[in-house]
Amino acid sequence: MKKLVILYFVLISLFLIYLYSAYSRGATDPMDSAVGLRGESDEKYVMVNYLTGNEYWKNCLKGFEDAAEALGVSVEYRGATQYDEHEEVTVLEQVIAKKPAGIVLSAINSEALINVIDKAVSSGIPVVLYDSNVPNSKAYSFLGTNNFEAGVAAAHKMGELVGQRGTVVILTQKNQLNQQQRVNGFIETLEEQYPQLKVIEVVEDKGDQVVSESKTGALLLKYPDLQGIFVTEAVGGMGVGNALINNNRTDIEVISFDTNKGTLDMVKDGVISATMAQGTWNMGYWSLMQLFHLKNALVEPVADWQQAQVPPLPTYIDTGISVVTKSNVEHFYAK
Amino acid sequence: MKKLVILYFVLISLFLIYLYSAYSRGATDPMDSAVGLRGESDEKYVMVNYLTGNEYWKNCLKGFEDAAEALGVSVEYRGATQYDEHEEVTVLEQVIAKKPAGIVLSAINSEALINVIDKAVSSGIPVVLYDSNVPNSKAYSFLGTNNFEAGVAAAHKMGELVGQRGTVVILTQKNQLNQQQRVNGFIETLEEQYPQLKVIEVVEDKGDQVVSESKTGALLLKYPDLQGIFVTEAVGGMGVGNALINNNRTDIEVISFDTNKGTLDMVKDGVISATMAQGTWNMGYWSLMQLFHLKNALVEPVADWQQAQVPPLPTYIDTGISVVTKSNVEHFYAK
Repeated sequence: MKKLVILYFVLISLFLIYLYSAYSRGATDPMDSAVGLRGESDEKYVMVNYLTGNEYWKNCLKGFEDAAEALGVSVEYRGATQYDEHEEVTVLEQVIAKKPAGIVLSAINSEALINVIDKAVSSGIPVVLYDSNVPNSKAYSFLGTNNFEAGVAAAHKMGELVGQRGTVVILTQKNQLNQQQRVNGFIETLEEQYPQLKVIEVVEDKGDQVVSESKTGALLLKYPDLQGIFVTEAVGGMGVGNALINNNRTDIEVISFDTNKGTLDMVKDGVISATMAQGTWNMGYWSLMQLFHLKNALVEPVADWQQAQVPPLPTYIDTGISVVTKSNVEHFYAK
Repeated sequence: MKKLVILYFVLISLFLIYLYSAYSRGATDPMDSAVGLRGESDEKYVMVNYLTGNEYWKNCLKGFEDAAEALGVSVEYRGATQYDEHEEVTVLEQVIAKKPAGIVLSAINSEALINVIDKAVSSGIPVVLYDSNVPNSKAYSFLGTNNFEAGVAAAHKMGELVGQRGTVVILTQKNQLNQQQRVNGFIETLEEQYPQLKVIEVVEDKGDQVVSESKTGALLLKYPDLQGIFVTEAVGGMGVGNALINNNRTDIEVISFDTNKGTLDMVKDGVISATMAQGTWNMGYWSLMQLFHLKNALVEPVADWQQAQVPPLPTYIDTGISVVTKSNVEHFYAK
């Protein structure tokens, strides 16, 4: 009899413990799943670009990875290894075929990739764009630099560096939209606000360090009184820097672009006076945050939202521009 | 003896169950806390503005609340009930005294609140701004409409509605920066791209429905051939609409601003041809997302980030502008 009582006691205890355990799980589990932004580890987002080995992309990818870690999702990095739009189209097609949770794309140009982007979105894969935009695509948003404003900021810095008057040349890649915008912002600002500070020549440097170095050498001979050089991308900037070192010219103010290690070292050494840093980490981080919201229906686009003008997300995030000089250069080395 | 065995059995069972329960909690808890964006329910974020009863704010608050629900944090809504900068300063001081997790503020003007904003940030409370900016404060970012671009979009819509030539008046509040920007974008676009479409008068309506109605009545008499009216805020827009109804004028194209129910009803009825909708939900949603990142050190501003030009977040989020007409008006009623 007593044994039975004890056995009952054991069974009832176990049952109560089970109940308590189930209750406490029940009380926390729904919270875990319903509250908090947290994805599945097999929820894979893909970053696609071109010239994949370019140092410039590293910090974009870092932001993308940091967001993935925060949200508990996976990421993959793909792209065209060459500066080749056909290769980028092919890679994007391959990525779409695997039905990822979302794609953030930097397009080599604003024409070649429209159809593939639209195909991805139509098949239910969210796409946002970073660094370079494709304005007429079905992508949900663009996160990147306002390149015209970057040129404006560079012009003001040039005005500060060389004073209100003098002569300046620009080295750029004339066929690339983002660089055209930088040049336009720079020239318009000088014309309007620094009328005595003249751009005397705009030179093609093909984004090639050797070309840029030799063309700078020639410019130094052609314009002995030159006071400033604005070079609209990183590789050309290092070519300019080398030309100044080789010619022992420490009197010329150079404003370059981006934060490649070589550029930052030249800023530190005083060869380059300033370089324009883009908000690359923010491009990667907030693009994944937006994709996550689309994928998990935290924002729900109405049908034909572009036609109906009901954007589910902010369609443009200006990731900002910073003027990097000796005084703040340490903040911009890759971590 | 047997009783003791059973008692041991009970105790061992309980201990094993306890161990299992502790183990399973231990296995899931670290994951819960390390992965996913999720706050504490006592983590309270405060939205502060002015004219708190204004219908315009509702959708901003909805976005703020939706983000709080997604992140598992709390929100509170405070502000000046009147259009009174002293009242807003006082309310903001009270909010700061309670040391909230973060503050999103719409400032009545860009001067009166700088010191209080800076005080909050210096004391470790993150502040971001929405809808109206305070450019020289220590706030981390601004989320709102590009009002100049909104004026540009309104000008293009007016060009489409009245054709390439004709006369237009503007009703606005001349002392308010955001409305000045809308007027400037509108006028500059007409001048540059629709030179035959002329703005013949810019009229002060004090954002008051009665004033706007009576001034519109007078304008209709003064300019019998008037073809279009651009009115830069919601309340004035309804006054314009009423004046047209009372005067049986269905031939005039009106472009208004914002998506108050009264405005949307007039769009639906064809009294107002189009109204410019701001991305209010996105202002509220993404401002809380940014505050959460600052509060929880997901982004970590370096000391003096403004001076060092190292913004921890995108400093400007353009929340977009939509042209609302009969064809898409249903999407814009409050949900």
